[in-house]
Amino acid sequence: MADDGLRFPTSLGTSDETQIRLLGQDLAADLMGKVGFGELAYWLVAGRRPTPGETRVFEAVLVALADHGFTPTAIAARLTYLSAPDSLQGALAAGLLGGGSRFLGVTEDCGRFLHEALAGVSGEIDYDELALRVVKSATGRIPGLGHPVHKKLDPRTPVLFQIAEQEGLKGPHLRLFEAIGRVHPQVLGKTLPLNGAGVCGAALADLGLPIDILRGFALLARAAGLLGHLAEERRNPIGMDVYMTVDRNAVYDS
Amino acid sequence: MADDGLRFPTSLGTSDETQIRLLGQDLAADLMGKVGFGELAYWLVAGRRPTPGETRVFEAVLVALADHGFTPTAIAARLTYLSAPDSLQGALAAGLLGGGSRFLGVTEDCGRFLHEALAGVSGEIDYDELALRVVKSATGRIPGLGHPVHKKLDPRTPVLFQIAEQEGLKGPHLRLFEAIGRVHPQVLGKTLPLNGAGVCGAALADLGLPIDILRGFALLARAAGLLGHLAEERRNPIGMDVYMTVDRNAVYDS
Amino acid sequence: MADDGLRFPTSLGTSDETQIRLLGQDLAADLMGKVGFGELAYWLVAGRRPTPGETRVFEAVLVALADHGFTPTAIAARLTYLSAPDSLQGALAAGLLGGGSRFLGVTEDCGRFLHEALAGVSGEIDYDELALRVVKSATGRIPGLGHPVHKKLDPRTPVLFQIAEQEGLKGPHLRLFEAIGRVHPQVLGKTLPLNGAGVCGAALADLGLPIDILRGFALLARAAGLLGHLAEERRNPIGMDVYMTVDRNAVYDS
Amino acid sequence: MADDGLRFPTSLGTSDETQIRLLGQDLAADLMGKVGFGELAYWLVAGRRPTPGETRVFEAVLVALADHGFTPTAIAARLTYLSAPDSLQGALAAGLLGGGSRFLGVTEDCGRFLHEALAGVSGEIDYDELALRVVKSATGRIPGLGHPVHKKLDPRTPVLFQIAEQEGLKGPHLRLFEAIGRVHPQVLGKTLPLNGAGVCGAALADLGLPIDILRGFALLARAAGLLGHLAEERRNPIGMDVYMTVDRNAVYDS
Repeated sequence: MADDGLRFPTSLGTSDETQIRLLGQDLAADLMGKVGFGELAYWLVAGRRPTPGETRVFEAVLVALADHGFTPTAIAARLTYLSAPDSLQGALAAGLLGGGSRFLGVTEDCGRFLHEALAGVSGEIDYDELALRVVKSATGRIPGLGHPVHKKLDPRTPVLFQIAEQEGLKGPHLRLFEAIGRVHPQVLGKTLPLNGAGVCGAALADLGLPIDILRGFALLARAAGLLGHLAEERRNPIGMDVYMTVDRNAVYDS
Repeated sequence: MADDGLRFPTSLGTSDETQIRLLGQDLAADLMGKVGFGELAYWLVAGRRPTPGETRVFEAVLVALADHGFTPTAIAARLTYLSAPDSLQGALAAGLLGGGSRFLGVTEDCGRFLHEALAGVSGEIDYDELALRVVKSATGRIPGLGHPVHKKLDPRTPVLFQIAEQEGLKGPHLRLFEAIGRVHPQVLGKTLPLNGAGVCGAALADLGLPIDILRGFALLARAAGLLGHLAEERRNPIGMDVYMTVDRNAVYDS
Repeated sequence: MADDGLRFPTSLGTSDETQIRLLGQDLAADLMGKVGFGELAYWLVAGRRPTPGETRVFEAVLVALADHGFTPTAIAARLTYLSAPDSLQGALAAGLLGGGSRFLGVTEDCGRFLHEALAGVSGEIDYDELALRVVKSATGRIPGLGHPVHKKLDPRTPVLFQIAEQEGLKGPHLRLFEAIGRVHPQVLGKTLPLNGAGVCGAALADLGLPIDILRGFALLARAAGLLGHLAEERRNPIGMDVYMTVDRNAVYDS
Repeated sequence: MADDGLRFPTSLGTSDETQIRLLGQDLAADLMGKVGFGELAYWLVAGRRPTPGETRVFEAVLVALADHGFTPTAIAARLTYLSAPDSLQGALAAGLLGGGSRFLGVTEDCGRFLHEALAGVSGEIDYDELALRVVKSATGRIPGLGHPVHKKLDPRTPVLFQIAEQEGLKGPHLRLFEAIGRVHPQVLGKTLPLNGAGVCGAALADLGLPIDILRGFALLARAAGLLGHLAEERRNPIGMDVYMTVDRNAVYDS
């Protein structure tokens, strides 16, 4: 064989004539009908099967992030579908490409912020003290704090804390995030809500998922939401109206 | 208000200062921790909550389609990540963009093929007779028939039939697909396996999901698989080796 | 060497320690400062260097297709940039993904339509007769005919005909397209303008460029227009206003 | 009119029934056949028409960046085309999505690095002194320095310096870059070449183009190169061989 010596290792999927293996399991015999889709997504990224409690917290995060109505990403996906209805994958991809630093990035940013704050801390942690230190030394905005619409309380936040608590999965990231919620008014002089994207990042970090991939879960969740938008765009389109509204009100600015 | 008269209707998500509504439900109170992610994806597209049986069949389909190892889409996602590691969304989008007619399109094509074959058929259906008619009149390849690797049997196919049967959801699309499996040798003169992508399309069509969006479920499933590849690419990269293998063996062809 | 036997041929670019070769030329010595960008794009796709006349027609096409104001693709690119300003490539890609069948596809569709009409025709062609036959036998809309805004005359059309004429490059595709403009009222009972995207497709086909890649030139042209939009979005943003206009006028539709 | 009050300003394109205006010009009468495509791209981004000398430098940059053979982005585009040949825009977009920090980002990074080094410097500049200061205080790698293949000299670098010199456009960014080439061995203890992507960034910055959009020109250039790859993939495909090479050498790694 000409190219032996080449090796491309993977611990995800392989197949031969009679079997498809995924994550070391027999896909057809062991996984289909036996693991949920969220559970499999967790397993694929983390490389280990989650417990039922971990799956519940994880799926609650995905549900929380799936759709926020007419976000820029949902509008972009619908406009792309209007332009190129033959390529559903293109419309979905266009929507996901908005999943960057500003709108979908908070989940990752918050998880990373908390992770870095906790790095090097050992022994029993006084979360309020650590939170105070973290808020005082923050140079920019603290990720996960504040929301343009939910100015007092983001309704997702207490619910996700509660679910994590129920499942025994309220770990250091969620605890530190909660403490930031308690102490930041002392430093900032105003009270901001802990937002839903941020608490999701904290919860994912407590699940032990890799920090650099956290944005990916927001994208996976949003993929479901965008499919909902594209299905709705087929039934009850708004893309042409958005386009016409902008085009009709274009003003030439020399 | 200057722009009243404009109306952008949606039945997905909306929010105000205290509540986030999704699909007519209170996201925090009614959905988080209470519905699974696959269940929500179905609901978002179909506009109705699936039953537990429907959810099980649907998640089995997503699990079946999530990853097939080093497909062209997985390799493209990894190479994009190698080139632009700062943009996880770009690598994921690049992978999904391969979800077109050839590799991921079979699910949609098969669902549509069966749907069109069943359109206009009424009364009790003799599936073998209908299948024979359909196979005889097919102009090109029959979607869902044959597989480059699983030449005799695609192991996903009998399992998905069985799950649908268990849940009382083996409807006309799956029955017709099964009948095509039985009768096509009479017409084609050779026996081909019913492939996994095809049976997934038949099962999704039997779930009443919109035919034009079927490809979207393959994309959603693949989004999870691609995240697995990108997480693995971080831990144990192969992208640079793929690039070097190609570049080192480039031959200038005048 | 482990993987000899592998060969990946290309006639585009290769490089070694001292030289970069592109299209059989020395990139630094023969191309930089000596060929224009449009000329190079033509050469890359066609595999041969265009004449000055071909370059002029080709660049006129790219100029004609570069921007049409606030198209759905331009709006999608701007919304993606709003959401993910850290990834210019993502915003550009999102805009290009709208380059499908409906908005940017006319160039390719028209080129292909004319190409197929001319296939098999030999000897001296009576263009009006052929056009009449083609218009009568067309099953759907004739690509390149009609425009939502330029209801009488698309101003690009006569100019591109004139440029092609000046350069001696008005070939069978442009002639047949022109004839369709003359004869279609007899068949359709109304007079529609030959649109700019269509005439561009005819001109590209007359340049001998591969029909299956024609859409690519519309995409290349649009890439420049989208960069203009993204640069303007930085200076004078409208993305947030578009988003707010849609979001503020969202109506929950149960 | 219901939505007056809405205003979406643009200085790019607008059209009415009889005219298409772009950049304040009549597209058909003033631009088509009269401006080159590179010239228009510059104008679209900079908001002013370039001089012939500026156009020559600019097009030399685009030509230099158009293609580098089987890069990860070219391979990703070809694999995407293999998977979804019905969507040329998807394959092009997938290729461009690799235009991030690592492979295509050097142009932008180098332009920005030089721009920041020059900010606040006034009066006559001693470029060697400034370069020395800049190299000494650099925390990470200096963008534009070094190349994996052209270990001694990147052949594009002297040619672009020469073209800029010829056109009277060798400004402070190119001069500082050149000085970095002279002085860095004193600090780093080894001599690295000034690479082509870096000199392109310096030249674009000297043209007064917006620093935050520099990556965009690398993307535009690469769009032409990727179209070349996709046209070649149609004529003489390698995508399936790349896929098979990887898949055949996949090793399950538990």
